[in-house]
This record gives sequence, C-alpha cells and structure tokens, in this order.
Amino acid sequence: MNRRDMLKLSSYAVAAASAPALAESAANTGTIARWDHIEIALPGPSAGNPFLDVTLSAVFRFKHRTVTVPGFYDGAGKYKIRFMPDELGAWAWTTASNAPALNGQSGAFQCIAPAVENHGPVSVRDTFHFGYADGAPFVECGTTCYAWAFQSEQTQRQTIETLAASPFNKIRMCLFPKWYQHNRHEPPMYPFPRSGEVNDYSTFNTDYFQHLDRLIIELRRIGVEADLILFHPYDKWGYESMPADVDDRYLRYVIARFGAFRNVWWSLANEFDLLKKKTSSDWDRFAQILVAEDPFGHLRSVHYCHVLYEYSRGWCTHAGVQDSRMELAAGWRADWAKPVVFDECKYEGNIASQWGNISADAMTRRFWMAAVQGTYCGHGETFLNENDILWWSHGGVLHGKSPERIALLRTLLEETIAVGPGPIGFTYMGDHPLFGARRPNDSVWFYYFDEHQPAEMTFMLPQGKKYSAELVDTLTLERTPLHGEFSGEIQLKLPGRPWLSLWFRQKA
Amino acid sequence: MNRRDMLKLSSYAVAAASAPALAESAANTGTIARWDHIEIALPGPSAGNPFLDVTLSAVFRFKHRTVTVPGFYDGAGKYKIRFMPDELGAWAWTTASNAPALNGQSGAFQCIAPAVENHGPVSVRDTFHFGYADGAPFVECGTTCYAWAFQSEQTQRQTIETLAASPFNKIRMCLFPKWYQHNRHEPPMYPFPRSGEVNDYSTFNTDYFQHLDRLIIELRRIGVEADLILFHPYDKWGYESMPADVDDRYLRYVIARFGAFRNVWWSLANEFDLLKKKTSSDWDRFAQILVAEDPFGHLRSVHYCHVLYEYSRGWCTHAGVQDSRMELAAGWRADWAKPVVFDECKYEGNIASQWGNISADAMTRRFWMAAVQGTYCGHGETFLNENDILWWSHGGVLHGKSPERIALLRTLLEETIAVGPGPIGFTYMGDHPLFGARRPNDSVWFYYFDEHQPAEMTFMLPQGKKYSAELVDTLTLERTPLHGEFSGEIQLKLPGRPWLSLWFRQKA
Repeated sequence: MNRRDMLKLSSYAVAAASAPALAESAANTGTIARWDHIEIALPGPSAGNPFLDVTLSAVFRFKHRTVTVPGFYDGAGKYKIRFMPDELGAWAWTTASNAPALNGQSGAFQCIAPAVENHGPVSVRDTFHFGYADGAPFVECGTTCYAWAFQSEQTQRQTIETLAASPFNKIRMCLFPKWYQHNRHEPPMYPFPRSGEVNDYSTFNTDYFQHLDRLIIELRRIGVEADLILFHPYDKWGYESMPADVDDRYLRYVIARFGAFRNVWWSLANEFDLLKKKTSSDWDRFAQILVAEDPFGHLRSVHYCHVLYEYSRGWCTHAGVQDSRMELAAGWRADWAKPVVFDECKYEGNIASQWGNISADAMTRRFWMAAVQGTYCGHGETFLNENDILWWSHGGVLHGKSPERIALLRTLLEETIAVGPGPIGFTYMGDHPLFGARRPNDSVWFYYFDEHQPAEMTFMLPQGKKYSAELVDTLTLERTPLHGEFSGEIQLKLPGRPWLSLWFRQKA
Repeated sequence: MNRRDMLKLSSYAVAAASAPALAESAANTGTIARWDHIEIALPGPSAGNPFLDVTLSAVFRFKHRTVTVPGFYDGAGKYKIRFMPDELGAWAWTTASNAPALNGQSGAFQCIAPAVENHGPVSVRDTFHFGYADGAPFVECGTTCYAWAFQSEQTQRQTIETLAASPFNKIRMCLFPKWYQHNRHEPPMYPFPRSGEVNDYSTFNTDYFQHLDRLIIELRRIGVEADLILFHPYDKWGYESMPADVDDRYLRYVIARFGAFRNVWWSLANEFDLLKKKTSSDWDRFAQILVAEDPFGHLRSVHYCHVLYEYSRGWCTHAGVQDSRMELAAGWRADWAKPVVFDECKYEGNIASQWGNISADAMTRRFWMAAVQGTYCGHGETFLNENDILWWSHGGVLHGKSPERIALLRTLLEETIAVGPGPIGFTYMGDHPLFGARRPNDSVWFYYFDEHQPAEMTFMLPQGKKYSAELVDTLTLERTPLHGEFSGEIQLKLPGRPWLSLWFRQKA
C-alpha cells in the first residue's frame, strides 16, 4: 500500500498524542498549513455555566470571503475556536461573544502549503466517488472500531498502529460509549458529568471530548478518515434518549470541537431506526444542524438497521448502507446519484451472531462486488479471543485474512483512479454487473468474475487502443500478466476457476 | 444413494428400450401393475387425416368410479388408448369414437400390486413438498438435459446410465428440438412432417413421438421423473409460433400419449416470456387444457426468463422458478403456499455465458440454501469439451463436482423425511433463514451455515428429548459425529469455518 510505505511509524502514546497545531500564543503572527487546523484559545468567564451562558463565534476572512465559525468552552475558563483554512495566503479573524472578555478579539495568520501527506478533507467527486481537496483521489476503504475510544490506552495505541499498517483509510467510531455484547464495561469517562445513574446534561465533560480530539488528530496523522457516529442505540447511560435541547447542544458542541479536523465525516447514527425515542423530525433537525452549522461542509450520512434510509435526500452527501446484498449496489447508485458505501455488510469473524461470522472469502467478495459496481465496501472483524478484544468494537489487532486481500483491491483501484479524471462506470454481463471501466478515456477496464469460472470469454475493448491484460486471483493475490497486446474484440482462454479478476490497462 | 444401490444397471439400447407393458393382445384378460400403464391398441381408419378426422376416448371403470381418457392415432391405422390404474382390483373399459371400428370396444383387466421400485406418480405433499402415490417421500433433486432426446443413440444411452448413477430424480427435457448456442444441429426427426422449411401441422410424425415414449419409459424404469417442457423459444423450425389450433392439438396429443406414464410432469414452457408470439391468454388456455384434459392430474408448472410467473395461480401445482437469489425461497414459499423448485439457478460449468459457469461450490450452496428453507433446487452442467456435448442440453456424462455433494444432501434429506409425517419447516437466525426442522415431531433439526463460520453457537433443542449431533462439511462431504447427547439449550464449539451443516437427530 502506498500509505503504508509512506508513513514512518514510530511508537507514541495516544493519551499524550502529537500536539495539535495550537496557535494560542501565536494567533496574530503564526502560520498554519492549508487543511490543518488553527486553534484560538481565549480566557473567559468560568462563573455560572459557561456551556449555557456564553456565546462565542469568530468570523474568518480571506480576501472578500468570510466564514463564521462557532467556538466552544473547553473548561477551566478556556474558550476555543478552531478553524481549517482552505486557501493559501493571509487570513484574519474577529470574535463575537456575549462575554465582553471574548468579544471583538482579533488576529491574523498565514496559510502555507501543506505537507505532502496532507491532501485536505474528502468530498464527493464525479457523482459516485470521493476525492481529497487537493485533487488526489480517495479510494474509500473503511473499517469499523465502534468503541475504540473507550478502551485501554494500550489498545488505543495498538489500534492506531494496526490501522496505519492496514489498507483502511476510514474508521467508523462512536462518540458515545457502547453497551452491547462483548461491550459490558463502563467507559473510563462519561461525556456528561454523571452522579450515580444521573447525567448532568447542562455541561460537558471536557476531558472526555479532549480525549476524542486527540484520537481524531491521531487518525488524521496516519491518514485515516474519522467517520464519527453521533448517536447509537447500544446504550445504558441515557445518551440514546436525551432531551431534544441536549441532543442539539451536543451536536453543536461536536461541530464546534471537531469540525476543523479535516478527516471528520459525520454519521448521524448507527442503526438510527433502533433509537426508539427519536422521531423522523428529530433526525431531520439533526441533519439540518449539520448542514447549517458545520462551516467546513464535511461528508454526511446515516446508517440504518431495518429501514433503508432515503439516501436521495439532500442533506446526505453519500449513502452508508447496511446490507449484504451486494447485487443491489448498481441500482442504488443509479437511483441516488451519490457515492454508495456499504458501511456494514457483516464482519469477518467467528462469533455466534450472523452479522459477525462471515469468512474472509465472503468479506473479500463483498469488497470486489462493491468495487466492480463503482461503489465502496466496509470492513469489520469479530474473532473470539481470550482478551475479548474484537476489532469491530475495541480495535487492537487484526486476525483475519481479508485485509491483505482488500489491500490489493485498493492498490488496483488507486492505480486505476490515478490514470485520469472521471468516474468508474460499470455495465452488465448477463444478469450480473460484471465490469467496471475507467471513463471517459477507457484507459482501464476491469472484470470481477465472482463465483463464475469461464474457461473462455469474448471481450470488446475499444478499437484503436492497445491494452495489456492481467489476471488477478482475488483470494490468493496471485497476479498473472497475460502475454500480448489486446485491442478490439478478443477471445481469451481463462483458467476456469472462480474468484478471479481481469484487468485491461491501456498501454502508453 | 439408495436408488443407486437399488438399481441393477445393465447395458441396453434406448432405441430398442425395454418394452412398455403393452396390453394389445391381452386387453380383456391381462394384468397390469398399479401405476404402470396399460395400452389398448385398436385398428381403425387410415384414410383421410385420422389426426383431424377421428375422435377416440375410453371410459375406465373401477367400482362406481369412471375415468375418461383420450386416445390418439399412432400412424399406420393404429389407434391407442393408454391408462395408468391407481387402484388394485378389477377395471373395465369401453371406447367411444366417431369411427365405427373404434367405437364401443370394451375390455377389462386386473390391477395388481406394483413392483417394489414403483411408487406411483408424484404429487404435492404437506403443502410445500412432494410425495409418491404409495406414501413414499419424493425428495425432488432435479437436473436438466433440455435436448437429450435429439442426440445420438449413444449419447442417449449414456444419459440414462449417467442419470441412473446420479442423485438426480427429475430431468427437465424439451419435447421440441432446440436451436441455440452449442445446439446448432438439425434433429434426427421432426414432430411434424417437414418439407424444406414448411411444416405440415395437420398431422404428427408418429416416429418422433414414439421415440419420446421410449425415452420417458426409460426414465420411468430408472426412477427419474420426466419434467416435459411443452414449449420453448430456442427454435428455428416454427414450433414457438404455431397457429393456436395447432398448439392446442399438439397439447392434447401429448396429454393422450404421455399422460399414462406415471413419471410425467408438465412444464408449460421454458422461459415462456421469450415466446414473443404467445399472449397471456394463450398460456392461460394451455394451462386450462392441461388441468381439464389430463386424466391423471400430473404436476404442472412453468419456467420464465425475465418475468416472475404468478405461481399462486390455481393451475400451478408448484413453482418452477429461474433465479439465483436463493434468499428469496422462504418468502416465496410462504406467499405461494406451494412447493418451490428452483428449476434453474445457473449451471456448474465454464462456458462464457454467466448462466453456465458457476463453480461446484456455488451450485452446492444453492442446493443447501434451497433445502434449508424447505424448498428444492435444480442442477445443470455446462463444461466445454471436445465433443461439444454439454450435459445441460445434450446429456451424456457429468464432469462436475457438485453431483456427489448434491447426493449427500439428498441422502440426508431422505433420512430426515423418512422419520415421520409433516413438512420440513424453517426459521430465521438473524437475517438468514438458517435452519430446517422436521415437524411436527421435532425429530430432526438441521442447520446450514453457508458463508458463516461461527466458532461457537447456542442451540435451543426441545426439552425432554435427546438428540445426537453430526457436523457435515457440505463441500468435502466429511461427516463428523459430535460426542454426547444433546437436549434443551446447549452451547456448542464449532470449527469456525464456512460451508458446514449441523444435524440434530432424536435418539430412539
């Protein structure tokens, strides 16, 4: 994997993670790399309840453009405003607050060229795909560690190390702790002050959120997108059924805290339809808050259990489906005209639950079936072990055989994407969506044969272009170049065994 | 396989097949085994066009019951009436015809106990399943040799030998010759006299139909049901677009000729929706003719390409779907309240067409997925070979790896079925229909794990009954008894690999 080679991993402690680019003492003179974040820290009132009483925002100006950004209280009389500049050059800012000490503060900074590994935030590209702000393609390749933020420091460190060496460039993670099978421990901290079974929803536990800051920044450091799950139903503390005003304040707080981190994606919920106290209008209101109040316009979606979400709705930037029927991908893509990500399609593992015991072969197949339809798949892993640390929820280390296969697919897709602009398309062979093509320039065509095992097949390549051909065994990872140069209608002998992929690449 | 052990195969020539139980000279005094057929042959007019001019039927009487049976002209001045008695004892018959020589003839015969391998015709049993008339279960296990009737005598003989040694107890076969990929030969005979490109639809080629008689009787001899496909679209001779009166006459002729063969099933068409000249009312009329005019009430269904047939309709005794989405079986079964047979779910093979190149593993999976939902699957095989003889159409020999695996499944299901009355039910585990149970007495429960690989699982067996447990590897065919006796809620360690099945059988 490119990224694996690129990163120079060293040991570090997550709890004392590499510091964010704090601008506290240099707000007026500092520099900040494009798509990194600047943090303005201002002392202010600590009396009363600053979370409820004090308003704070800042307007950032670049030439004639202004961006209004919410600030947040971080405890101990400290107020913060975080900002991710997206243009090179001189920026200036001015604060507004109902607290005189915080009002009318101002400063300026220079936004400078980013480091080579900083490609900026990800957004939708070519209708069905994703790309970084600097133009680099983002071949979404996600995994899931729902509750890794609430595990031991050692496990958190392992998670980062495992991720950095993995093919995965997005992680689905919950902002609230999780109570579920294999997850029956109290978290080390709570998001709200808690006394016995009672939450004090009037304030936030800033230690809790500072910890999440550090984790998201660690993910950013290793090039992994943090798909933040804002609500979920696996709860014993009350977070799935908070009063509406608390829900909204929590959302706004999270937007203000994390929005300036370029690797943030918003997932409104995991299995939203299992939060029985929430109504459709609650979800609509949450979506509106995200759309209206995230100054950085991060990607937005939601994940369901039983009820397929209407991903055609305007607030969704992409679909984050839970389904194992990979054959539906192409139709959904066409219907919704958005990127389709199978955020959950069951997990490689061996637990008793059907959603957590598919084979590595089956997991690999799902990734290929998604890819060949121009959509994206998500990984997770649930292998029983003595420590009861399962990647799907706790992170730690990977035990399965699918990641190395997924890595090959990502490499192949990145090679494909690298050749030029335009989306990956696909078409049908018989009743199966069987190939993807790099369009509009036809420079790469690829097939995935799934359970099919043709011993021969005719292919229609564009006339007047010359292609090389390579057979890829998606399970053994063997790559076999086919001898010769191919053009127009060709008939190929094939090995007559399943799980192969065939790649045609235009020769220079 | 039971049947494989039971049959004593010897070489024989299909073209001079073991003679049907002809009663020509013994109509008044003979005996015939229950569910065999008696054939009354009467000399009659050969002038004019006997096919159009002469009507013939006979009433068969058993005690106070009468059955009216159509006769048919078999050429050369010979008229025939075939009858399959279903009651032991004395039967008598009287003919009716507009030809004096054929009118008012009468006779009698004794129906005696059948041979041990003659279980009678198959009909629907316990809503979702099939059974023989003598009460023996029929675990449908079908294959497909569409055009075997039109191949060389050697290939036809091979087909019978292969079938007899196979797990398959039903074959889908066309009554008209086939024109399609791998099928570009003129047949040795035509169903209607043919001059150049012109069919004489006013008569039938009796040689053609006599040949089919022999093949169906050969299938009967080896215990294989003949699922006769009455119409199909793979045509170059005009049989897919005959005038309506010819269609109807052909149907009535076929009913009169073949209806007394106990192993006949009627399939109205293969891919009925590809016969572009036929309308819905044509298909309805054909169905009505089958229902009204087959005195023996053979099983009836139809096979489609793009348009799922309404199998809930009254004339259909069972569904004969073409689909690879095995997950839909349980829902269809519940909706239609009939046996569901996946007559076509793609074929094991390696040809270029997607419908003909799935792996043996995939074919095996389809059979298990059907079985665990209390439905049935169909086999076919399409391996390229030097002689261009592909089982799916020509018959001959089998090359694939799925039949031996299908054989094990059939054996297991027959063991299950043998334990007592009542249908196989099923229920869901998570989002998958994961097990079947022998009901109502819970004597057998079985699970199929498909792509799932749990390392442990909890099972809820009935309290107060004791079960043995056996793990079956559906691909390697390894059968591993688990040590001990099982009852009530139990937790089992499992191998943590996919494609396994688990069987609980009540101990005596």
